[in-house]
Amino acid sequence: MEMFKVHSVEDARKKLISQFEGYNLKTVDINISNAAGRILAEDVFAGIDVPHFRRSTVDGYAVIAKDTFGASESLPVFLEVVGEVQMGTSADYTISPDKAVYVPTGGMLPEGADSVVMIEYTEKLDEDNIAIYKPTAPKENIIDIGDDIKKGEKVLKKGTKLRPQDIGVLSSVGVNRVKVFSMPTFAIISTGDEIVEPDKEVKPGQIRDINTYTLAAMADSIGGIVTKKVVVKDQFDTLKNVLEDVLKDTDFIVISGGSSVGTKDITGKVINSLGEPGVFVHGVSIKPGKPTILAKVRDKAVFGLPGQPASAMIVFKVFVEYFIKYLLGIENEEESFIEAEMAVNIHSAQGKETYQMVTLEKKEKDYIAHPVYGKSGMITLMSKAKGYVRIDTDEEGVNKGEKVRVYLF
Amino acid sequence: MEMFKVHSVEDARKKLISQFEGYNLKTVDINISNAAGRILAEDVFAGIDVPHFRRSTVDGYAVIAKDTFGASESLPVFLEVVGEVQMGTSADYTISPDKAVYVPTGGMLPEGADSVVMIEYTEKLDEDNIAIYKPTAPKENIIDIGDDIKKGEKVLKKGTKLRPQDIGVLSSVGVNRVKVFSMPTFAIISTGDEIVEPDKEVKPGQIRDINTYTLAAMADSIGGIVTKKVVVKDQFDTLKNVLEDVLKDTDFIVISGGSSVGTKDITGKVINSLGEPGVFVHGVSIKPGKPTILAKVRDKAVFGLPGQPASAMIVFKVFVEYFIKYLLGIENEEESFIEAEMAVNIHSAQGKETYQMVTLEKKEKDYIAHPVYGKSGMITLMSKAKGYVRIDTDEEGVNKGEKVRVYLF
Repeated sequence: MEMFKVHSVEDARKKLISQFEGYNLKTVDINISNAAGRILAEDVFAGIDVPHFRRSTVDGYAVIAKDTFGASESLPVFLEVVGEVQMGTSADYTISPDKAVYVPTGGMLPEGADSVVMIEYTEKLDEDNIAIYKPTAPKENIIDIGDDIKKGEKVLKKGTKLRPQDIGVLSSVGVNRVKVFSMPTFAIISTGDEIVEPDKEVKPGQIRDINTYTLAAMADSIGGIVTKKVVVKDQFDTLKNVLEDVLKDTDFIVISGGSSVGTKDITGKVINSLGEPGVFVHGVSIKPGKPTILAKVRDKAVFGLPGQPASAMIVFKVFVEYFIKYLLGIENEEESFIEAEMAVNIHSAQGKETYQMVTLEKKEKDYIAHPVYGKSGMITLMSKAKGYVRIDTDEEGVNKGEKVRVYLF
Repeated sequence: MEMFKVHSVEDARKKLISQFEGYNLKTVDINISNAAGRILAEDVFAGIDVPHFRRSTVDGYAVIAKDTFGASESLPVFLEVVGEVQMGTSADYTISPDKAVYVPTGGMLPEGADSVVMIEYTEKLDEDNIAIYKPTAPKENIIDIGDDIKKGEKVLKKGTKLRPQDIGVLSSVGVNRVKVFSMPTFAIISTGDEIVEPDKEVKPGQIRDINTYTLAAMADSIGGIVTKKVVVKDQFDTLKNVLEDVLKDTDFIVISGGSSVGTKDITGKVINSLGEPGVFVHGVSIKPGKPTILAKVRDKAVFGLPGQPASAMIVFKVFVEYFIKYLLGIENEEESFIEAEMAVNIHSAQGKETYQMVTLEKKEKDYIAHPVYGKSGMITLMSKAKGYVRIDTDEEGVNKGEKVRVYLF
């Protein structure tokens, strides 16, 4: 245990990961109709070819391509039409030289055909005969067996966050149930003698609870289920009882407030009273968010966040969200951002990874980022912001006019 | 009705909006704990100041700033400590000249005090006396009444998509129920004689249903509730019966397949058989997605999407998602993207707004976009893509090395 030694964000993350090496999230089998946004807990392989028959990509005539070679407006090729394929049915014809069969878009190609002439380049002469005015090449206008997905192919990787099109892929290969990670459960605890519920009257000296609401919404936004949300007084025994209670049946515990060295700092003490290893990071070089606690209690991760709403939210993002994504092994999610030009010079806090809240102004197709200023503890620091700019520890700040990446928040 | 006249995306959107002028979405009152991601249906005003008392932003001594002027390391100012404010309680002291009261971070300032000296710049001499080594200015280290939010201030606008910090703002002003737009209900219908459910066996000529799954997941991702999901044969009466049924109790109807002129094109005919105005756009200059239908039946919006999965998804995004966001009047959502460099030249379809699917390759901090190619109808066109690049109607394409915005999809 290294109390009071401030860690870099990178070091703190490494410690977090090494403490929970081998930690496994639970999994659950669900129907693909409910699987959008969930994370695959296993690779998925195709049990069939898609398509599993040769399909036409146009409305036209299935032919042997060679029969059409040399066809032109002035010198058409004449073929005999021996049938018409119906959508959704097997093409029970065999094409022999100089024969053609009508096939709609998506319809099955008859045996023997190797190409489809678009209907636009044909003319119906009578019930049984057509003229073809343009040659077609073998494999033209068809999707061959397995062209989309090959039987045995790995179609989706473990760790994929399922998007609508991924659900479509599962359906196309006939997979209608998948194993995904269970939604992790969260207990959100706010400590503070001054905090009251939003439906209660506030007396002088008291403020309404903000953190349990913002943090629960953040847990929800990363696919978590908040099973307990509670405000407790800054008292050792009270917090200890609540913590012992939620440790029984929640996966992750997030405590905000009470972690600032200098105040009563009971969070760290309570955690350490519950057994080894307890607190393994106390203090991170991040702004806002310095008095952050990372701990392991009874094999569960406990996060101690600062009490200031803005700090608590940033630390949630930097550690809790990061850790959950790490455990889920999310493979396919890029962090998107808006590229903007900084309106003024901004300075970073020396030696700290700095998160500067900004608003965005749109100028035609471009964006200008303006910093949001305010005093520590203001919730409007966050609500007035569109996102944040991250300034690395070794950077001094951002100059006016410089391009920055604004991560929406 | 203007059948077969192809509209630009912009024109089609304008027609859609003008057809539904005055359309109102239902609203519902919900608890703020369940409101994250929902859209506010009314402005919210603060009924109180936040904070509603003067708070200290540091641990220190509340003083009259003037008393500390001139204090230094070599010549401290001495003050008498007349009390200590407890968190969450009223500061029942009055500060007179040369007096100080201890206040913790977030604690209430006593009457008479106008500043707080940080504890770091003080020394406790005995139980009742401190030395102050640094002057403090009036209003230093305090948050005044209403500094964060002023009573009567509009804190959140109608049309705000509630983020975690917005929920925090609501809580801070004591609002624990809000009026939000009801989640719009959707019926998702796929037509096609060849389509079977994913849990059924596929025979030659048949394919598994993809569109109802991808489109239902897309409706879900924009906050919709899919109340009906159905695959129907490409038959006039069957589709008409289903449509009449879902028109009774769904807000929006999305039909995929059957809208391509040249195939049986029953979607448009069925819609028009149900009354005026029926189809008001049939055909949009967009790639993929040309055979798009926009219609109004019994005061409800009906969208006819192409049957190809990629086209159906793009048209859903360009029209259905656009329209829902328009109706909700979402104020605060920026479309985020990843700026990337195009790996090769890509060409747009002449006179069409073109959506080119791309994958992303990360090179240090930068991204390279590679087009995803494939035949029309392949679901892997979408599942292999990270996002798309939009090429406007008047642009010819994108050159290799050019910067593009990749919208994640």
